[in-house]
Amino acid sequence: MIAIIATLRAKPDKGEEFERLFTQLAAQVRANESGNVIYQLSRSRTEPNTYKVLEIYRDEAALEAHRASEHFRSAGPGLGGVLDGRPEIEMLDAIG
Amino acid sequence: MIAIIATLRAKPDKGEEFERLFTQLAAQVRANESGNVIYQLSRSRTEPNTYKVLEIYRDEAALEAHRASEHFRSAGPGLGGVLDGRPEIEMLDAIG
Repeated sequence: MIAIIATLRAKPDKGEEFERLFTQLAAQVRANESGNVIYQLSRSRTEPNTYKVLEIYRDEAALEAHRASEHFRSAGPGLGGVLDGRPEIEMLDAIG
Repeated sequence: MIAIIATLRAKPDKGEEFERLFTQLAAQVRANESGNVIYQLSRSRTEPNTYKVLEIYRDEAALEAHRASEHFRSAGPGLGGVLDGRPEIEMLDAIG
């Protein structure tokens, strides 16, 4: 399995809108991607406007299916408008 | 829900032993903690001997039950012997 920790920063006044848009995306990921194990948005308790997405995929093919999915691609522009810079993506190998 | 990203560093020659001990703990968490959603060990692809645990708990009580559990407490000494310093714990609030 593949684990990903994505760090996203919302523009200062766009946190609520970001959360709304991302929560919609997460619901579509859970409904449409059988290879996804977890796709959980979370908000930092220490850094303002900072979010981390905990993601786990069964394998490389599941991750590629995620990235190629209609719902992920179509969410890009909306999210891009409320994010402060590009997401940081940390790739990890799940164990056990 | 509460999300946690725990960063753990194994001593240089203790990675395999750490993975074995932690995988045992994770199996017990999954078997015994109804309030735990995810307890996934993962290995960094960029930093040697560095691991991140993706954890999600239904609520504060589930997290407290985890910390007070026999399996978590009894795993402490063994893990402590193969870790290079204390784990870094990042607490986050899960959204959606």
